[in-house]
Amino acid sequence: MITIFFDYLCPFAWRGLELAATLFPNELRLKHFSLEQGNHPDNASRPRYDPSWKLWEQPLEATRGLGAFLASHAAAAQGPEAQLRFALELFRIRHRERQELIRPVFEEAARRARLDLSRFQRDLEDEAQRRAELASNLQEAGQLAVFGTPTFVLPEGDAAYFRFTQLITDPQEALELWSLYTSVLRSKARIETIKRPRP
Amino acid sequence: MITIFFDYLCPFAWRGLELAATLFPNELRLKHFSLEQGNHPDNASRPRYDPSWKLWEQPLEATRGLGAFLASHAAAAQGPEAQLRFALELFRIRHRERQELIRPVFEEAARRARLDLSRFQRDLEDEAQRRAELASNLQEAGQLAVFGTPTFVLPEGDAAYFRFTQLITDPQEALELWSLYTSVLRSKARIETIKRPRP
Repeated sequence: MITIFFDYLCPFAWRGLELAATLFPNELRLKHFSLEQGNHPDNASRPRYDPSWKLWEQPLEATRGLGAFLASHAAAAQGPEAQLRFALELFRIRHRERQELIRPVFEEAARRARLDLSRFQRDLEDEAQRRAELASNLQEAGQLAVFGTPTFVLPEGDAAYFRFTQLITDPQEALELWSLYTSVLRSKARIETIKRPRP
Repeated sequence: MITIFFDYLCPFAWRGLELAATLFPNELRLKHFSLEQGNHPDNASRPRYDPSWKLWEQPLEATRGLGAFLASHAAAAQGPEAQLRFALELFRIRHRERQELIRPVFEEAARRARLDLSRFQRDLEDEAQRRAELASNLQEAGQLAVFGTPTFVLPEGDAAYFRFTQLITDPQEALELWSLYTSVLRSKARIETIKRPRP
């Protein structure tokens, strides 16, 4: 299995999930990482595994990303395939159609992803459970020191943030791109970073 | 020509220069980038092309890296091949033998690199000229928004920081590593970053 850490707010995470879904939809574990929490000033001087400001403890309306994560966990209650379909639809609505991450949009994504809508709504109402699931995801990300999305974790344990700007869904191109990324992670030079400057 | 921006303080820059020198010693332009200047608190809120704290204006004894850059420009006065030999020797003395970046060490590097030692010392005495050359390098790095070393600039203009932890000097391994790096920069996905988290 390959894990992807992502945030619905992030267009790079959208492209990362499309890439992974093109190549290995059945070997993918979806996990959330919160950019809001990761970049929060209250957490700036703290280790990533021990944040002070925790997204899952915030009131829904005080954050930009919490609602989408809870909806994503509600979708996961219908199984990993349902969650992947939901995540792709919500990402497309957000980053292609430029809609806000709000409740009616979560329901639209659930419809497009062919979820059981009344079950989705019921699972979304069970907010304490959804927050606990999110806490677990974010704590796992913190242990790995994830700092941005998408971050993939390969079966051998190698992990890296992978940021690219062009949507790649052609299977052959996707395969080449994934092969390049994994070759970087597996190089015996132990590559830690390749990063373009941004003038 | 391929440009490498580097700082003698940086072990990753050492490995980057060894890699490039293994593959294309005659197509390499050496340029300096100062981590001290890049990371200086006085420059934190300023654009990289307009720093407030400028290394080339500092007294020699107030910095960790200025002396090595001035020595590097003195070596360059004997031609690009002489400068490359000097840079490799000084990097090895610093990062393999763990010596300080001080005047007697610069002279030892010049000896090992078979420079004309009295000319090297004379060129080093012409400090105003060497500082002006360094200013030009650092301003060029600032225009490109270089933030770390080594950063390579390819002939087509693509540029990226390239950090790896294992010294690679076997020609075949070096070729594979360089090919991987340039494939990342040339990918049609326009990869901006691949970066491992550091738990």
